[in-house]
Amino acid sequence: MSKSAIAASGHTYRTQNISKRVQQIVISPIKEMSILADDFAEKSGANIISFGQGIPYVDTPKHIKKACVEAFKQIDTAKYTLEPGITELRQLIAKFLQKNKKIANVIAKKEVMVSAGCQEALCCALATVVDAGDEVLIPEPSFASYTEQILQLGATPVQAPLNEKAGWKIDIQACEKKITKKTKAIIFCNPMNPTGAVLSKKEIDDLAALAVKHNLIVITDETYDFLTYDNVKHISPASIKALKGRVILCGSFSKKYAMTGYRVGYAYADSGIIDHMLKVHDAMMICAPAISQKAAIAALKGSQDCVKKLVTILTKNRNLMCAELDSLSEYLSYYKPKGAYYILVKVKVPSEADGRARVVDSFKLTLRILYEAHVIVIPGAAFGPSGEGHIRLSFAGDPKKIKEGFKRLRSWFNKWKKEGFTL
Amino acid sequence: MSKSAIAASGHTYRTQNISKRVQQIVISPIKEMSILADDFAEKSGANIISFGQGIPYVDTPKHIKKACVEAFKQIDTAKYTLEPGITELRQLIAKFLQKNKKIANVIAKKEVMVSAGCQEALCCALATVVDAGDEVLIPEPSFASYTEQILQLGATPVQAPLNEKAGWKIDIQACEKKITKKTKAIIFCNPMNPTGAVLSKKEIDDLAALAVKHNLIVITDETYDFLTYDNVKHISPASIKALKGRVILCGSFSKKYAMTGYRVGYAYADSGIIDHMLKVHDAMMICAPAISQKAAIAALKGSQDCVKKLVTILTKNRNLMCAELDSLSEYLSYYKPKGAYYILVKVKVPSEADGRARVVDSFKLTLRILYEAHVIVIPGAAFGPSGEGHIRLSFAGDPKKIKEGFKRLRSWFNKWKKEGFTL
Repeated sequence: MSKSAIAASGHTYRTQNISKRVQQIVISPIKEMSILADDFAEKSGANIISFGQGIPYVDTPKHIKKACVEAFKQIDTAKYTLEPGITELRQLIAKFLQKNKKIANVIAKKEVMVSAGCQEALCCALATVVDAGDEVLIPEPSFASYTEQILQLGATPVQAPLNEKAGWKIDIQACEKKITKKTKAIIFCNPMNPTGAVLSKKEIDDLAALAVKHNLIVITDETYDFLTYDNVKHISPASIKALKGRVILCGSFSKKYAMTGYRVGYAYADSGIIDHMLKVHDAMMICAPAISQKAAIAALKGSQDCVKKLVTILTKNRNLMCAELDSLSEYLSYYKPKGAYYILVKVKVPSEADGRARVVDSFKLTLRILYEAHVIVIPGAAFGPSGEGHIRLSFAGDPKKIKEGFKRLRSWFNKWKKEGFTL
Repeated sequence: MSKSAIAASGHTYRTQNISKRVQQIVISPIKEMSILADDFAEKSGANIISFGQGIPYVDTPKHIKKACVEAFKQIDTAKYTLEPGITELRQLIAKFLQKNKKIANVIAKKEVMVSAGCQEALCCALATVVDAGDEVLIPEPSFASYTEQILQLGATPVQAPLNEKAGWKIDIQACEKKITKKTKAIIFCNPMNPTGAVLSKKEIDDLAALAVKHNLIVITDETYDFLTYDNVKHISPASIKALKGRVILCGSFSKKYAMTGYRVGYAYADSGIIDHMLKVHDAMMICAPAISQKAAIAALKGSQDCVKKLVTILTKNRNLMCAELDSLSEYLSYYKPKGAYYILVKVKVPSEADGRARVVDSFKLTLRILYEAHVIVIPGAAFGPSGEGHIRLSFAGDPKKIKEGFKRLRSWFNKWKKEGFTL
């Protein structure tokens, strides 16, 4: 099993003068599939539909773009902001955390830093708590980049499988079994990517107890905090008193306000942790983009109707994609997501040899789907061993394209069936 | 000697659950001084003049800002770009490198990546060639963040002093003496920050020979490539044939187009190196900000008159600041910069004890200057051991403020003299 779609497609890598650590890591297949698709489209002229990278198909709300246009009249937009972020933005984030996430007494200037996207905040968080040789626990399937961020630090990602049969729930015993003296932190996304599960109060309490018992830092990626379905509530571990001083919350504006291209996010933690994260942030980025910080200010200050509207759109999209998947139940099964905008779909086809169910090579499968059906889907193996045999589909796209994409998938799977499901 | 202005000002850091590696590093005092100044201004109401962070006082050229305003009409500005950057921007950078830096046959899609500022490109470069335990050679005084970026990787920065008496020239013997089997790369800024020196053809040829002899990668930070004085020419090591496959060039739009707040830069290297750098870039950033990439496209496509104008302005500023420094020659001496917009100024005051010349504690000095004269200058020790006893002054600011700042410095140094130069 390859970890890289680009390597699986035949590319080889230079080794001379390259660090061993970086030789180990890969570009997340989420982005590799976009890169491969772009090259393929350029060569073949194919019109490709993406269920790949998680990008809302709507534009950034008008009032946020308007604030950006206004911001270009201010000369400070041209310049570095203070390294930890614009003070007003830190204050607005602190208010948001108190009001929306029920975190008590957030001190904007000590406990909040603005980052160039949630991705950078996660890097700063991991670097701050993990030394080379340490271990970080990851319930999996999980967002692919955590593993690469940890390997990049010379540390070891240790994966504990989620309970798929229970609908991708945290298996706290499986987690505890993997803890050693070297384990420094646990990292997860909630609502979860790629499974679409949302952690219950009980799951969070269990994780909190585990963290306290084993002196772990809890790194929580709350990119999809606004996006839950069927009246399920998002709960942040940072609101749990037992975790005081032990949580790093990484947040985002990217999905909530359709601002993935802006590269602005934030982290909240104990001031003693933020102190150190700012050092990593400085060495890596100097500061988050000024214009994007101003967009984030407008996002937090303005009406939240745009968020409600986005949730309504994405709820419809979820239902649409689930209906499409149901019509392909001969080949595919899934748990209906309770949050985020991904579905981790199990490919259940009979083995070529003996006709029994088998675990499909998700890298080979997704490359064939890209080149033959002209649809981007993400190999489940990119998210951890439990993801193998699955593909991740994002339903953040245009509903028309969801329909068209499934037309293509339907005829591809039917064709594949005729071929006897060989890869 | 402290490495941190914030620590020198009395702040203590949490150690529990914090990685040893991050405990070692500091926020660059370049930004620490801005943070301390901001806190001080908030408390005291003081109006502070900054000769600190290198930020051109002019606004981004109008045609670039106009392109940004137009870009907000395009929905793709809201979204992640391809992870290596917008293809058009990579092509424009490739053209620029061929034309302006005389690098032969640059392949845009294989040898160029777009980064979130030159700082991030440098991080990706170092991560790609350096493992924990490796060594990286730094001619010093040098830009402060290289050291932190290297420590952050668990590697060791090894500093080799520049020859101050020769006007901060590379001392190739001093460099070679420091090379061991563990040395993987050499990193420097050209034109140099903080010294304002510009590498001659001979210095670059000597460095190239050294790199080839010892199998080193040359990481060159060319942030100030456009900014030289007195008809001195900037030469990129990437144009030297002997270094083919052995150079990582990190470039910037920040200073050239007054875009420090945009966070967009690039790297050029052998495709085998870029392949790996993109993996680090993905784990850290996903992609550079879309709007800033579009600004960079406008910058490269548009008229370069704005750059000429900026160089004219900064040349005048240099001459103004040198004249001001000359009038303080009782306390201060310096080499006139040939490039960039910094002057590394030696503070030459008699010892409290015996009246002989002494090396002044630059952290203590800069904090006193901030709190008493309300002027930000950067402690020379932040740039390496040879920087101790010096302060770095940026002349990128408004000439009116340069005059006012020197008025304050003059009276402060006169007062300090009366105090017997005690710190």
